[in-house]
Amino acid sequence: MVHTPVRSLPLVDLGYSTALLTDRYELTMLQAALQSGTADRRAVFEVFARRLPNGRRYGVVAGVGRLLDAIAAFRFDGPALEFLTSRNVVDEPTAAWLADYRFTGDVRGYPEGECFFPESPIMVVEGTFGEAVLLETLVLSVLNHDCAIASAASRMVNAAAGRPLIEMGSRRTHEHAAVASARAAYLAGFATTSNLEAGRLHGVPTSGTSAHAFTLLHDGERHAFEAQLASLGAATTLLVDTYDVERAVRTAVELAGPALGAVRIDSGDLGTVAREVRALLDSLGATDTRIVVTGDLDEYGIAGLAAAPVDGYGVGTSLVTGSGAPTASLVYKLVARADSAEPDAPMRPVAKRSVGKPTRGGRKSATRRMDGHGVACAEVVSIGEPAVGPRDRPLTVPLVRAGEVVGAEPLKAARARHAAAIRELPATALQLSGGEPAIPTEFQEA
Amino acid sequence: MVHTPVRSLPLVDLGYSTALLTDRYELTMLQAALQSGTADRRAVFEVFARRLPNGRRYGVVAGVGRLLDAIAAFRFDGPALEFLTSRNVVDEPTAAWLADYRFTGDVRGYPEGECFFPESPIMVVEGTFGEAVLLETLVLSVLNHDCAIASAASRMVNAAAGRPLIEMGSRRTHEHAAVASARAAYLAGFATTSNLEAGRLHGVPTSGTSAHAFTLLHDGERHAFEAQLASLGAATTLLVDTYDVERAVRTAVELAGPALGAVRIDSGDLGTVAREVRALLDSLGATDTRIVVTGDLDEYGIAGLAAAPVDGYGVGTSLVTGSGAPTASLVYKLVARADSAEPDAPMRPVAKRSVGKPTRGGRKSATRRMDGHGVACAEVVSIGEPAVGPRDRPLTVPLVRAGEVVGAEPLKAARARHAAAIRELPATALQLSGGEPAIPTEFQEA
Repeated sequence: MVHTPVRSLPLVDLGYSTALLTDRYELTMLQAALQSGTADRRAVFEVFARRLPNGRRYGVVAGVGRLLDAIAAFRFDGPALEFLTSRNVVDEPTAAWLADYRFTGDVRGYPEGECFFPESPIMVVEGTFGEAVLLETLVLSVLNHDCAIASAASRMVNAAAGRPLIEMGSRRTHEHAAVASARAAYLAGFATTSNLEAGRLHGVPTSGTSAHAFTLLHDGERHAFEAQLASLGAATTLLVDTYDVERAVRTAVELAGPALGAVRIDSGDLGTVAREVRALLDSLGATDTRIVVTGDLDEYGIAGLAAAPVDGYGVGTSLVTGSGAPTASLVYKLVARADSAEPDAPMRPVAKRSVGKPTRGGRKSATRRMDGHGVACAEVVSIGEPAVGPRDRPLTVPLVRAGEVVGAEPLKAARARHAAAIRELPATALQLSGGEPAIPTEFQEA
Repeated sequence: MVHTPVRSLPLVDLGYSTALLTDRYELTMLQAALQSGTADRRAVFEVFARRLPNGRRYGVVAGVGRLLDAIAAFRFDGPALEFLTSRNVVDEPTAAWLADYRFTGDVRGYPEGECFFPESPIMVVEGTFGEAVLLETLVLSVLNHDCAIASAASRMVNAAAGRPLIEMGSRRTHEHAAVASARAAYLAGFATTSNLEAGRLHGVPTSGTSAHAFTLLHDGERHAFEAQLASLGAATTLLVDTYDVERAVRTAVELAGPALGAVRIDSGDLGTVAREVRALLDSLGATDTRIVVTGDLDEYGIAGLAAAPVDGYGVGTSLVTGSGAPTASLVYKLVARADSAEPDAPMRPVAKRSVGKPTRGGRKSATRRMDGHGVACAEVVSIGEPAVGPRDRPLTVPLVRAGEVVGAEPLKAARARHAAAIRELPATALQLSGGEPAIPTEFQEA
């Protein structure tokens, strides 16, 4: 039942410093804390979401692997220090401190692919205040983006009910967010991505054949299909809605024969057109030719095609924009700190009392509690020492120990973990309609 | 009236290849076109939006400068080619073609900061089919993201009516999208960003002082304020809602005196709290101390605080997520191509006829037509040769000529252009309520 990350993978060398992917106030706080003598107090920061977006039933942890690489690359190099001092962002003593910076603390948290709920302590970062406060923006940027995409992707995977999904939203989001989106979608169960860098960098399987431009380039659809088949073989996917779908399908089967891999429909009423195309393909003997549909699909559109003769879905915009929830609303809050900078100073839970945005102090860990049938029934958050009951599956695992990454794992491990985590949730978790989180979050004090 | 980009700036060396920030189908189309002999046909691709999102009145062109850098870095290096051939994405002849790739064509388009409307030909990419089709995803990723953010930012700037806006959404979006978002927001009129990399890379002014964690780190709010004032001086901004706002404001003025720069309120009913804080500050003699409000603000929230004593706004989530429209829905469509690969082959307009997604063929340029009072009254799109009437301001400028970037310019030039472009629109453009585009798009054939 315990999913422990594999300590196996070398980190990806990003080839650049991530240190300035940071909000300025982290550095001004550092400078002031260095001056006031508080920068070396031990501090515990927690990443959590106050609520799930839009009536979602669960969230999906994603981005952990990317974040571990990014933390390893969080060093202030010459250009970064030159920028910070020349613009008076920090003074010279602070710059000197930054020049030696590397994170030496501990990070624990939910491994990638795990589900989360309101107030799940997804990640706990512990170190001196100075070293831990600097990671706030980087941690949140990576996790807020990737969790949002994976959370949307997981719903689409559920809606597709076993039919393969192709991630093809790169063009609708920032060029690097596109790569991370493809990774998050694969983690959540998508079959492939159109994004080549996601293939190279993260090993996500890639797919893609042709666009309308290819048909328009040629002297007629027939010539275009001939060219594509000559290059990619009969198992390719032909795009059949540039002009007239029926004529295109007839031409496609005439040229490729019944070995034609698939046809793609990108416009019109997808369910109706798919039925017509299925009947036509079957009448032409192309009974094994698959039908792939694309075009403004989201989880609801996918679910609405459940009864249509569709063999695969391509999803773009709605995936990379989180299907209405483009950010996971995770926050990074100080929940405990030492009373002094002495190494053995006692830790004290802290919490702000801002109206509508209170926090709950104390270092936390979590387990998922199962009922007698092995179905998840509660997210149990322990404050203080972890408490693990007989039906509790521990969720919090070590990711970084004393500055050394111990939680790197293959992306496929996270993908398998997510599939297992979904199977364990109650059936209501898979409903697309808005509602309460699938399981309640309960707190227990040590 | 003509805003021509300055040809002055060297490109930013991204330090990495952008060639795999691409959808696989572009490479499979290239391979098939190389085989069929059509890859060298001249082709014209156009970037446009079929519609504006969510009843928006106008869109803002952004990302052009970033895109020019990215096109210059679009070269297939060894690791990219190794990936493509080892995974059988392309065959060896195609890989050899890619190894020599550099874009040698022309790019014309709207300069950065310009406004756009439905079917505005924001960018026109012309070259061989092979070289131009490869840029589809990169062009759309950069422009769809940056235009979405700038379009939202511009509405916020209008709503703020001269009060400064701080971009602080880095933590709510992908770590690199954050940098681009800060750039797009500045272009649209934001005053500063929290994002340090946007400061270093794009020269956007940065700001930031402290978070609740800094207060919680110290032994009481008084100690935290003392530490911040000692480090950053009385002109800093103190965050006053960690515990009790009134007490915090009294402590802040007691410690800093009337020279205190600003207080920040991040929670509660911002208008009500701002009024109370203004009265309290004034009663304490801190009449010049400004009030900055943050916390889930969007353009509507900003407009709703117009009558409140607020001196500046910090905007996060809604900015980086495009305030409900996280992508600009721009597409990249083949609109003309030669009948053969001969250099002088005549060009033919082409257009797909997909249901609900038709395109309009032909190479286009655009002007903005003014009425007798100098107010924009139409977006005039010319198909074929450009036609410029006496009250038309040309919108289409050269960006790349025969592979050489000629449209690089300082970000401040784009910022000034946007401010001018907004002033020229009819008053309805500034309404926040949903409605029709501020001006109609008209087509004229050459």
